[in-house]
Amino acid sequence: MKNSFHPLRPEHLDRLNEIVGASFTHTDSQNLSIYGRDETEDLHFQPEVVVKPADEKEISQIMRFASKERIPVTPRAGGTGLSGGALPVMGGILLSLERLNRILEIDPVNAMAVVEPGVITQVFHEEVEKLGLFYPPDPASRGSCHLGGNLAESAGGPRAVKYGVTKDYVCGLRAVLPSGEIIHHGGKLHKDATGYNLTQLLIGSEGTLAIITELTVKLLPFPRYRLTLLAPFDQLEKAVKAVNQIFLAKMTPSALEFMEQDAIQASENHLGKPYPHSDAAVHLLLEIDGQNKETVERETHQLGKILMDTGAHDVLMADSGEKQETLWSLRRAIGEAIRNISIYKEEDTVVPRNQLAPLIKGVKEICQKHQIRSICYGHAGDGNLHINILKEDMADEKWQAIQKTAIREIFELTVSLGGTISGEHGIGLSQKPFLPIAYNEAEISLMRAIKKAFDPQGILNPGKIF
Amino acid sequence: MKNSFHPLRPEHLDRLNEIVGASFTHTDSQNLSIYGRDETEDLHFQPEVVVKPADEKEISQIMRFASKERIPVTPRAGGTGLSGGALPVMGGILLSLERLNRILEIDPVNAMAVVEPGVITQVFHEEVEKLGLFYPPDPASRGSCHLGGNLAESAGGPRAVKYGVTKDYVCGLRAVLPSGEIIHHGGKLHKDATGYNLTQLLIGSEGTLAIITELTVKLLPFPRYRLTLLAPFDQLEKAVKAVNQIFLAKMTPSALEFMEQDAIQASENHLGKPYPHSDAAVHLLLEIDGQNKETVERETHQLGKILMDTGAHDVLMADSGEKQETLWSLRRAIGEAIRNISIYKEEDTVVPRNQLAPLIKGVKEICQKHQIRSICYGHAGDGNLHINILKEDMADEKWQAIQKTAIREIFELTVSLGGTISGEHGIGLSQKPFLPIAYNEAEISLMRAIKKAFDPQGILNPGKIF
Repeated sequence: MKNSFHPLRPEHLDRLNEIVGASFTHTDSQNLSIYGRDETEDLHFQPEVVVKPADEKEISQIMRFASKERIPVTPRAGGTGLSGGALPVMGGILLSLERLNRILEIDPVNAMAVVEPGVITQVFHEEVEKLGLFYPPDPASRGSCHLGGNLAESAGGPRAVKYGVTKDYVCGLRAVLPSGEIIHHGGKLHKDATGYNLTQLLIGSEGTLAIITELTVKLLPFPRYRLTLLAPFDQLEKAVKAVNQIFLAKMTPSALEFMEQDAIQASENHLGKPYPHSDAAVHLLLEIDGQNKETVERETHQLGKILMDTGAHDVLMADSGEKQETLWSLRRAIGEAIRNISIYKEEDTVVPRNQLAPLIKGVKEICQKHQIRSICYGHAGDGNLHINILKEDMADEKWQAIQKTAIREIFELTVSLGGTISGEHGIGLSQKPFLPIAYNEAEISLMRAIKKAFDPQGILNPGKIF
Repeated sequence: MKNSFHPLRPEHLDRLNEIVGASFTHTDSQNLSIYGRDETEDLHFQPEVVVKPADEKEISQIMRFASKERIPVTPRAGGTGLSGGALPVMGGILLSLERLNRILEIDPVNAMAVVEPGVITQVFHEEVEKLGLFYPPDPASRGSCHLGGNLAESAGGPRAVKYGVTKDYVCGLRAVLPSGEIIHHGGKLHKDATGYNLTQLLIGSEGTLAIITELTVKLLPFPRYRLTLLAPFDQLEKAVKAVNQIFLAKMTPSALEFMEQDAIQASENHLGKPYPHSDAAVHLLLEIDGQNKETVERETHQLGKILMDTGAHDVLMADSGEKQETLWSLRRAIGEAIRNISIYKEEDTVVPRNQLAPLIKGVKEICQKHQIRSICYGHAGDGNLHINILKEDMADEKWQAIQKTAIREIFELTVSLGGTISGEHGIGLSQKPFLPIAYNEAEISLMRAIKKAFDPQGILNPGKIF
């Protein structure tokens, strides 16, 4: 990665001070260090300045200026990304959206909300739920990630198996182009066939095409009833068979999570809480939700029967919010638990869900061959498997080489099974070397041409995706 | 619209003959005439040649050749479009996808199907339903439109209010670029955060960016129970109040259609069948579906109560497939009924659904001012109102002027209400003059830049959208 940008000059900082005010322009080492990291592995890239604009107008002025002076700008929402999308790898301006944090409107008749990109996902969940409404996307980092970042990566989470991901909920947006021009697309509209779908193109574009300043998202009625099941299995094959049988029975659980033994045990150790049957090879964590108590109970019973028939040791049901939270807190802590064990690299693979067994078996073979430890968990219902490779006491040289060997082999396997190299974390910086495994030259050229259409100078979040 | 292309030469036809075979290359006047129309108003533009390639490889060869010789190519699926998207306005090659009509795979475990673009939507519905699966998008032309055309326009239909539109179901595709290069994106994947979402960008791009050769679409479990309600109202306000109350009660009907008296009566006359209460000012046609009989019945009862409470004369329920088909056939025939009355222009407006009353009232005022007759119907649940303006015995001059007056005013009203100028028919040719009402200069320039990224020579479906 070549940095072809010049360092910022004092007059650049003066101009930024003028636009956003001195209290929102930071060049001290503490801020530069904090905003130089996200939650991706052990990566760190220092920006030259951190700015925290108040609104779209200031963002437009910053971009107009950055464009004129050819200064790289890296937008940042919650900073919880797992592929390095918010890391200012070429220095320049780190543009934090944290002050654009208002829920502008929750509109029950149209079942839509209008929000700024810096709203914390869980805060938004809680606000819409007060009105009996539901915003399904729920990444594990929901307590600290922002809706703008969810849009940038098309974040998913456990509920995606029934409810889809961020792209299925954003109906409109406002954004600032690298030139500083302001665009809008869509609105409180369930249908829109007016020109190219800029909303959908910007979702998942990882902040490389425009800076989102407002989102309009669709809401659903909040499902009033929810039951959670935990099913331990002694063999991967049995658990995967259960997953297939559930869909063949035309059931649609609202979550269908997969955790291998090492993942459960890492989480147990991290939280200091025991998990039932934590010695089982595989756990499935499932949820059924709906508006009607009897229907939810009947479907849960049906699900339990499929799990027992396909070989679960046991099926534990959590019918209270508290018991459900106990099961889910262990699931959600896995990522952090792994980060606490060792330096790691995470692959966010996704395959058609009936290819999960060949994927996991292949990953274990690859890891055995290279003598590395892996921990797998993820969203079995949508074939999205998070594979964590641990450095532990591995020599630095071998760790560096792993990108060229094991990880490449894992991604090649994923693509050969009809899958791709990121389900919900994005390509960002960390998966960039692997993009040509997923796409041919024509496809990558086309993506580059789209980037150029938005950002001819390449100043917005440079060094990402390609 | 300037045509900057040269006429085809005999050697061009020879080369096309070579690629697709003489039996699939047509230059006779009958074919040129048939393929010079779609279902948009009274428009007709003759191509110079009609070709019917067998597969992606032939399409790639055609595009490589057209690109080299700078020949315009207009792709066509079912030819049922309502905005002129498939009309070869600059002559050249009309490329029909009708021979790519295979359902390649229906995969129940992954709940996905892989299809070619020339599959008729209804044929596909019937095939997946045999396996207990469901593909919701159901445009009124479903008996003759093709899945590829549905993708090109992001087609919707009545079920969109609960189930969304084509963009919510396409998870992957293969396509040929104007250069002849073949690309793919996505697959049997419920999540994908790998680079820009080319699938979503191509959906609704009206055949101006690439030619789709294969689609992977998501399927749902088929809802086993369905009840249909018809509710006549004597006032628009009451019907619209019912719509709002339904959503405030957190109900999600699987259809919520609006028909004004003129629309019902046009359809009655066209089919020669009486409709109950056809003298009512407004009808709502509603449907509840689901997997559980009791739940569907209970929700239908709740819906009926809301309709009566908000002032419906009556609520008729159709509980058999036959009775339901009677109600729906009248709804689906409205478009054709209007076409049989007179030359017309249709506006496919969409607004936030709580803006339906101001939209309809405003439309009636505009039409009264210009002394023109309008017939309105559409999808109340998603604010998508089809406004048909009839020529009848209006003088040609006045008819020509209407685009500059009444239609422009209707679209300006739509946009001022937070809506846009096409919900599901696309911009194509007929709505092109109005695009600047929906988008500012920066937005249109950006769309043009995207077009250029795909099609630097502007040979694919030229003269559309912008």
